[in-house]
Amino acid sequence: MLELYIGNKNYSSWSLRAWLVLKTAAIPFYEHMVFFDDFQKQSPFKQKILALSSVGKVPILKHKDLIITDSLAICEYLAECYPDRLLWPKDPAQRAYARSITAEMHSGFNVFRQYFPMNIEAELGELGAKYCQDNAALQQELDRMQAIWSSRPTRDGFLCGPQFGIADAFYAPMVLRCLSYAVPLSEDAQAYVQQVLTVPALQQWIKEAKQEHRFVEINEPYRRRI
Amino acid sequence: MLELYIGNKNYSSWSLRAWLVLKTAAIPFYEHMVFFDDFQKQSPFKQKILALSSVGKVPILKHKDLIITDSLAICEYLAECYPDRLLWPKDPAQRAYARSITAEMHSGFNVFRQYFPMNIEAELGELGAKYCQDNAALQQELDRMQAIWSSRPTRDGFLCGPQFGIADAFYAPMVLRCLSYAVPLSEDAQAYVQQVLTVPALQQWIKEAKQEHRFVEINEPYRRRI
Repeated sequence: MLELYIGNKNYSSWSLRAWLVLKTAAIPFYEHMVFFDDFQKQSPFKQKILALSSVGKVPILKHKDLIITDSLAICEYLAECYPDRLLWPKDPAQRAYARSITAEMHSGFNVFRQYFPMNIEAELGELGAKYCQDNAALQQELDRMQAIWSSRPTRDGFLCGPQFGIADAFYAPMVLRCLSYAVPLSEDAQAYVQQVLTVPALQQWIKEAKQEHRFVEINEPYRRRI
Repeated sequence: MLELYIGNKNYSSWSLRAWLVLKTAAIPFYEHMVFFDDFQKQSPFKQKILALSSVGKVPILKHKDLIITDSLAICEYLAECYPDRLLWPKDPAQRAYARSITAEMHSGFNVFRQYFPMNIEAELGELGAKYCQDNAALQQELDRMQAIWSSRPTRDGFLCGPQFGIADAFYAPMVLRCLSYAVPLSEDAQAYVQQVLTVPALQQWIKEAKQEHRFVEINEPYRRRI
């Protein structure tokens, strides 16, 4: 059976992506939770993860002897192993578009990530509008993200069609950040947020994140009392 | 015919990746050079690139009506269109490894990128050792990069076997950064640098970068007189 190593559900946006793809595609897997700590070399987190791979990060997918150490590579592997699940669109041009926006998320939106680290349990609604104001770099990323969310084929569908796919899984952490920080969004972008929130697997993750209560200082730049 | 839009050969590490894959695989394409400028909304660079896609960045691959806007998505598309070129390894486990290290480069090594922006023509050899000293975050990325470079199947081969592939193209900008800034490397990592430099397409890019002489202030954090 596939085994997925993930970090805290409240914080680990990279883990969420791979986990969501497995869950929404109904692919059976065993879930290993490795809780975050101070990430020092000798910390329990690093010891556990470095025993699997020198990359030292989650998520990691283990399939028998094979170790896959990156969320996008994990999704590509799943797409190859389960072609009937249509994790990427079947049409080559649509697939190329799905990979473009997915890889863009993988490498980009660094200002957004820096200001708004994923923190599902937190209510930091006063920060979204505040940080977006007079911040051209952040606003540029937000505009681009909303352009992607607004380009979906139908208003009641997902980024690349009627089915939730890898591209949606990659943007799901951004959806959750927008909620935690009350980031100001266009009406069409808000409609995408609501669409993503209908996915039962995401609701399960949110519920488990809120029940987790394993707070880590390094992941809490804003909350001083946790 | 395929058309690839790229930025300055001296600076554009993302363009280099897609260009190298096309060249080393002997895939015919038309090359559009769009020189960097100040990247303001009304600048010639942005006007030209935004006419193709709202992502506003290079590289962009155009194939008839299809626009692909990310270097990794471009490479996945080429791998699908030209399966005989083996841009990814044929073996599924090796392919998963190749995608892991490629996607890791796509999303990571941000400290290294920040300190050492690609600048092929520059000789900034005094900076490599200086910045690596006492910088734990930079050293951690450097260690990880060297671990990847040292894990190639044979010492006289590339990252995933005897053939230069997508993974090598993604690490080629790092090779060039190590040279420009004289970043201290292990003997085995140095051997990989030398191996990559044997690739004729990379030599062509380096030559054209050095002849380019289109210097841009925003890409020159270190040189004051250019």
